Amino acid sequence: MEDHRPMRIGIVGLGTVGAGVVRLLETNEALITRRAGRPIVVSAVSARDRTKDRGIDISPFAWVDDMNELARRDDVDVVVELIGGADGPALSLARVALGAGKPLVTANKAMLAHHGMDLAGLAEKAGIPLKYEAAVAGGIPVIKGLREGAAANEISRVYGILNGTCNYILTTMERDGSDFGAVLEEAQRLGFAEADPTFDIDGIDAAHKLSILASLAFGTQIDFAGVDIHGIRNVTADDIREAAGLGYRIRLVGMAENDADGLFQRVRPILVPTDHPLAHVGGPLNAVVAEGNFVGSLFFQGAGAGEGPTASAVVADLIDVARDEYGDPFAMQVAHLLRQPKADSGNRVARTYLRFMVQDRPGVLAEIAAAMRDAGVSIESVIQRGAREDGSVLLVVVTHHSAESAIQTMLKSLAGSESLTSDPMVMPILN
Amino acid sequence: MEDHRPMRIGIVGLGTVGAGVVRLLETNEALITRRAGRPIVVSAVSARDRTKDRGIDISPFAWVDDMNELARRDDVDVVVELIGGADGPALSLARVALGAGKPLVTANKAMLAHHGMDLAGLAEKAGIPLKYEAAVAGGIPVIKGLREGAAANEISRVYGILNGTCNYILTTMERDGSDFGAVLEEAQRLGFAEADPTFDIDGIDAAHKLSILASLAFGTQIDFAGVDIHGIRNVTADDIREAAGLGYRIRLVGMAENDADGLFQRVRPILVPTDHPLAHVGGPLNAVVAEGNFVGSLFFQGAGAGEGPTASAVVADLIDVARDEYGDPFAMQVAHLLRQPKADSGNRVARTYLRFMVQDRPGVLAEIAAAMRDAGVSIESVIQRGAREDGSVLLVVVTHHSAESAIQTMLKSLAGSESLTSDPMVMPILN
Repeated sequence: MEDHRPMRIGIVGLGTVGAGVVRLLETNEALITRRAGRPIVVSAVSARDRTKDRGIDISPFAWVDDMNELARRDDVDVVVELIGGADGPALSLARVALGAGKPLVTANKAMLAHHGMDLAGLAEKAGIPLKYEAAVAGGIPVIKGLREGAAANEISRVYGILNGTCNYILTTMERDGSDFGAVLEEAQRLGFAEADPTFDIDGIDAAHKLSILASLAFGTQIDFAGVDIHGIRNVTADDIREAAGLGYRIRLVGMAENDADGLFQRVRPILVPTDHPLAHVGGPLNAVVAEGNFVGSLFFQGAGAGEGPTASAVVADLIDVARDEYGDPFAMQVAHLLRQPKADSGNRVARTYLRFMVQDRPGVLAEIAAAMRDAGVSIESVIQRGAREDGSVLLVVVTHHSAESAIQTMLKSLAGSESLTSDPMVMPILN
Repeated sequence: MEDHRPMRIGIVGLGTVGAGVVRLLETNEALITRRAGRPIVVSAVSARDRTKDRGIDISPFAWVDDMNELARRDDVDVVVELIGGADGPALSLARVALGAGKPLVTANKAMLAHHGMDLAGLAEKAGIPLKYEAAVAGGIPVIKGLREGAAANEISRVYGILNGTCNYILTTMERDGSDFGAVLEEAQRLGFAEADPTFDIDGIDAAHKLSILASLAFGTQIDFAGVDIHGIRNVTADDIREAAGLGYRIRLVGMAENDADGLFQRVRPILVPTDHPLAHVGGPLNAVVAEGNFVGSLFFQGAGAGEGPTASAVVADLIDVARDEYGDPFAMQVAHLLRQPKADSGNRVARTYLRFMVQDRPGVLAEIAAAMRDAGVSIESVIQRGAREDGSVLLVVVTHHSAESAIQTMLKSLAGSESLTSDPMVMPILN
């Protein structure tokens, strides 16, 4: 390795992940040099606040106030973007770096979900790597798993638990029987959820990641706008308990399928059978399943966020670059990525969990059952629990395999009914 | 892609996997061409019997009787070795191919376990790829996961379920309560076990794979001779039932650890807590866990054998070669792989399951308890079940954390005791 010059990186963004990358490169320096075939050294850094205590010594690195200047420095071979955000400074930096012929390593799922194709085009034109293992599922090498490991397969479906905050909340609700609001507050106190948790709990973060996975799995262009997004705010302790009684656990799952109908992409809470690996993914872990026509079902699990795991993925990318082992960012030339139409979710067929909160009076079950009959939705099982303090009654219906369009027709016919005390909760059951 | 010449491969060995590779390349031809950036085509094949019906049409390919001649053909850019066996024809072919400057893709774990360092040296000297994703855990991209995905980490431990036949047998015993012999016979009838099952059920196949994983995980030379190997023949229906009662499942686990003590490598049945992901790996599936100092615990699961999954891994390797994305076979130059001494297993500390079959007479428990006390082995729990038809009694002891050397001392002091009606079964509990 003595005959190889160090690969010099410039890091933009010194938050948790940026500091983690510095710490990792220091801690595992000797090993990384052996594995990468040459040293990987930090030469320059840029962040908002030079004086902030990050628990790392940044004095050996050049400090650059203007991040775009950092990307153009002669002593920066590779730019590591860790500031986040779909547009703004991150996007500008990415364009400057790739435009200057500098390989780019990023953890920025939002930017890739919105501008991944453009950026991949720039990288392709310059013949340089754009790497983003840390953008999806933290430390789990699932970008590599799809781009390379499963590359021989036509993939029919890719899905998984892509947001650790939501999984922490759902599995804590499951464990403690507590309500969403209380667990969210606790998660915020413990640092598992942001002060503004919208991106996480409303499913947007998972949707960013799903759109990237779908592109890799199917050889299609990233279509973030085509992702249907539902978060976990409406999942109740009742839902989790009733699901458990039926043999299921509730998980926020991002799922993408590609078939004759087009590209289906959705993030939503669903019921997962307890004998499915996703049912055993607890706390802030992430997991991804890919189903290929030759390999069958592949399952990857690990830490989806946090300093160490995310830094691990960033440095794995850097090692690939140092080894000169890289190629088209989205597994093929951008021109070969297909633009698929969005599939009509109404055609999707699944057994479905429906939870109604209803008035405690005669005729309510008859009304709901009639609406289901009229829509052609066939009932597999019904559970009704006695009245609550507020007088409402919990009614859970599991349907036989039904088209979502039929479920929607049924729900529309019940909309505005005085029998319902709140909006019904609808969750498909994973099959 | 029009401007790229096809990559032409020669396949040696047309058994299940070889035929699967041909079938996969045909079925997914268009997709593979997009992903690889150029077509991957079979130009020549070689096998023992030209006339055998394999369910594939080999007439478009040149048939070559002499496999070494195939490796030297001008129309073969890459050699795919699928004949198996540690030495003999496979090894000769590998040397001829690499010597002729031809990239080699192989599924041959036995050959790599015994000659991986030599072959990697040849590939390194020639600057060509030696790829072997299919050699470990079938379709699961775990070679790539360790070599690249987890490359930034110092890995302390890698372990997993590496033999599908054993896992099928153990999980079938678990499900049906049946004995090893009966399930093995059934597995042979169903094609899940070979007519001569020795390599699988005695742990040798898993040991081959473990030695490869250990090299990648720790940056050490492959040391197959350093693997302690125990199979599953002595696992009884009693063991599985008692383990279940204690909250565990029995799995054949290959485990490697690297620490100040040296390199520890062992294949043996162990007890896995039911809340551990390995406990949910059923049937012929494989799974691997890698523990890194930054990424934490990574878990990979999928089909560990069979035509489709193994072909998927072989073709993934071919795509890497076609994309020109490859490097040192064992993640670093062979000269940088450390030669670690074998760790003394006696220093290993674990809670341990001990199963004794003993005489139904006074004093037996006292004798065993005294032996444990004298060896300094502390008892966590004891289960004794009433006498069997043959008059023997089942006695299960779970120890507190104990050094294996103490357990061995204790067993030695009991050796030859008339109280025991058969050899005790010893299984560490995974922690």
